[in-house]
Amino acid sequence: MFRQTSEFLEWFAEQQRVQRHRVTPVPLEELDGWSFDPETGNLGHRTGKFFTIEGVEVETDRRETPAWSQPVIVQPEAGVLGIVVQEFDGVPHFLLQAKMEPGNINLLQLSPTVQATRSNYTRVHAGRPVPYLEHFLGPSRGRVVFDALQSEQGAWFLAKRNRNMIVEARGHVPVRPGFCWLTLEQIGELLRADNLVNMDTRTVLSGLPWNWRGQAEAPLVGRLDGFADWTGERSLHRMTDLRSALTEVRSTAVFRRRRVPLADVKGWSHSGTSVTHEDGRFFSVMGVDVEAEGREVSRWSQPMLAPAGRGLIAFLARHIEDRLHLLVRLRTEAGTFDVAELGPTVQCLPSNYRHLPIERRPRYLGRVRLAPRSATLLDVVHSEEGGRFHHAENRYVVVADEDAPLDPGEGFVWMTPCQLAAFAQHANQVNVEARNLLTCLRFLR
Amino acid sequence: MFRQTSEFLEWFAEQQRVQRHRVTPVPLEELDGWSFDPETGNLGHRTGKFFTIEGVEVETDRRETPAWSQPVIVQPEAGVLGIVVQEFDGVPHFLLQAKMEPGNINLLQLSPTVQATRSNYTRVHAGRPVPYLEHFLGPSRGRVVFDALQSEQGAWFLAKRNRNMIVEARGHVPVRPGFCWLTLEQIGELLRADNLVNMDTRTVLSGLPWNWRGQAEAPLVGRLDGFADWTGERSLHRMTDLRSALTEVRSTAVFRRRRVPLADVKGWSHSGTSVTHEDGRFFSVMGVDVEAEGREVSRWSQPMLAPAGRGLIAFLARHIEDRLHLLVRLRTEAGTFDVAELGPTVQCLPSNYRHLPIERRPRYLGRVRLAPRSATLLDVVHSEEGGRFHHAENRYVVVADEDAPLDPGEGFVWMTPCQLAAFAQHANQVNVEARNLLTCLRFLR
Repeated sequence: MFRQTSEFLEWFAEQQRVQRHRVTPVPLEELDGWSFDPETGNLGHRTGKFFTIEGVEVETDRRETPAWSQPVIVQPEAGVLGIVVQEFDGVPHFLLQAKMEPGNINLLQLSPTVQATRSNYTRVHAGRPVPYLEHFLGPSRGRVVFDALQSEQGAWFLAKRNRNMIVEARGHVPVRPGFCWLTLEQIGELLRADNLVNMDTRTVLSGLPWNWRGQAEAPLVGRLDGFADWTGERSLHRMTDLRSALTEVRSTAVFRRRRVPLADVKGWSHSGTSVTHEDGRFFSVMGVDVEAEGREVSRWSQPMLAPAGRGLIAFLARHIEDRLHLLVRLRTEAGTFDVAELGPTVQCLPSNYRHLPIERRPRYLGRVRLAPRSATLLDVVHSEEGGRFHHAENRYVVVADEDAPLDPGEGFVWMTPCQLAAFAQHANQVNVEARNLLTCLRFLR
Repeated sequence: MFRQTSEFLEWFAEQQRVQRHRVTPVPLEELDGWSFDPETGNLGHRTGKFFTIEGVEVETDRRETPAWSQPVIVQPEAGVLGIVVQEFDGVPHFLLQAKMEPGNINLLQLSPTVQATRSNYTRVHAGRPVPYLEHFLGPSRGRVVFDALQSEQGAWFLAKRNRNMIVEARGHVPVRPGFCWLTLEQIGELLRADNLVNMDTRTVLSGLPWNWRGQAEAPLVGRLDGFADWTGERSLHRMTDLRSALTEVRSTAVFRRRRVPLADVKGWSHSGTSVTHEDGRFFSVMGVDVEAEGREVSRWSQPMLAPAGRGLIAFLARHIEDRLHLLVRLRTEAGTFDVAELGPTVQCLPSNYRHLPIERRPRYLGRVRLAPRSATLLDVVHSEEGGRFHHAENRYVVVADEDAPLDPGEGFVWMTPCQLAAFAQHANQVNVEARNLLTCLRFLR
């Protein structure tokens, strides 16, 4: 246990020394074990396991572009993202690990206790068993605090979900090398740092029940003038109406999707080195060789998805009836599991829109970017999961905007953070970007 | 408004006289507007609208049979099943209609205020507008009591969902011919009758929040000795653990499904007259010509699915910690939207299993069938939706069985009716058979 953040930082620096690793970009066609299917152009592993890169074609009335095709990661199996929690001296502590992922900017980040694909934990690659897995699966698992299948990035994954779990362990839990106990307060401090608390930890924590064990919500927001009271008991809309809004979109939207061969995706070029968008927008698919210690296996190769720039993930916030409300967008993407999920007000790669006139840029993007510094409640940089995404940084922002319209337009809806957290208790309601931002809002100090 | 059930019955008899209709079985290949695709063998309408009969192939570790293929109804659009509610003298009244459906045994049943496919309400077949639709969609809709996308029969439909809604109307609601106001108590009495309250009405009512407006729950169960106290506040499992059980199945089960041409479905024969299982089990697909008054259009032809016998839909019930608990099965079927949903203890066509040894029959089927009359809390016959299913009767049963095992085995879980109703508030958690049985349990008098 760390008494001060500085102690943690020393420990973490030591982990960076101990866990040696090297990540080397490699042309896709030279990736060991991976190849393009000669017929479809799909990229896959020789075992047929792990994941594939294929194409997807979408038709929808919920985006500016009515139809498009794009490459997409297909990984139908759900992994486990699990955090063990246990009280010491009456204070809940969360067991996290300093874990290397090839796509991480500084390689090591704070991951959940268990972060395992199904291939991992069924040991397809014949590595070592996954430590602490017994707390989440099987007869000796602990008392469940949270357990839901949650969606991953809909712009990059086809209907991918992971099982997000928080479990109170029974009995003594030995701390293995590379693992450490942190309080919610300490995690809240570490959330201030760029690229330290990884995406999986952030998404799992978004599922912690509201005010769980009397843990304070939103210390940052609470300290700001005029945002002291946001318990969410009063709100613009009832939960029934908010659920109804999501039901309406899911039952009336046009959303047709089919998998297509990667070779048939239009507007993308497939060199042997990488798969890229013809205008350099969106993302590319690249390959890496990884050498590491402290992992299940010490050497492997894999494709990764690398975004074309730093993304922006933002909520506009304002008072309504004296409560803080967030502007939520009912968002549809190529890979969305069920038509739409609750997302941030703005979620995009701003560079994708640089060449476009203002009216074709995402709604509210301008309001977020032009917000004065004094209105910024939150502004941190975190990155997406380093097991699939290479240097995928996003700026996570919450901006107070008391002039934002009460009637925000088709596809947008105001709700309190508490209401959003209630949705996040259930599977496939809140997208991963909004869950990550919610965790920052709830816990960052 | 009816002061007594007898008044309703007179009105209903009058409706049967007024709404004339005739349903004539017709060979599939003579069905007006419908034809088998020469390549795939799929059965569809010339407009490409309404629905198709195709094939589906399933592989799963959640059923006795690890893999099979079967015909299935494909109808990707969600319709609206909506009931208008309004208080008169402080008592909520529900607006139902006496509606003809070609598959109904006595043709006329009590349907929701609105029961419209998307083709209906976007008027693909250019009929009359759907009455009362404005209470559910658009700017003048009422206050939402319940709104969720709910699944239909997974054994017959491919991932089909309908939008289930209960809405409190604003202002005066004129009662059109064929419609009537009924209290929950009156509906509860009518639920005793065979094949009177239709499936759509029953599924929508299952979404009524628990103890809504002080409406009494489970008058029938409450009257039975020893089942007086079942408010569900104490229960064997916490909601978190129950949600976790569903998450576990959805994240670990093997469930692979793909659409195949109807011509490729094995074990089924396709004559020009009908599509049937080679052993006469499960169901067949037949055609009907319909002539009717009081419908959007007065004449049409369509295929229907006709089950091979009367089904059994049953909960075992017992006391646990002094509360009534129901034995719920986490059930997977060919068409289940998301791997599994909460279903009844037993849900089958018993005739399918007549030739099989006991150990290959559905678990707990014997316990339900051998239950003494005195242990039967509920035993009524209702039928499935008459717009798609021809004479699809099910016996809906709840049996008290104090010796049922507390540890009911893999895939089964005990929960209180209140907990099951909480799941039914959300989309795709409780299957249509369990929702229907829950409505009988909650409201039947």
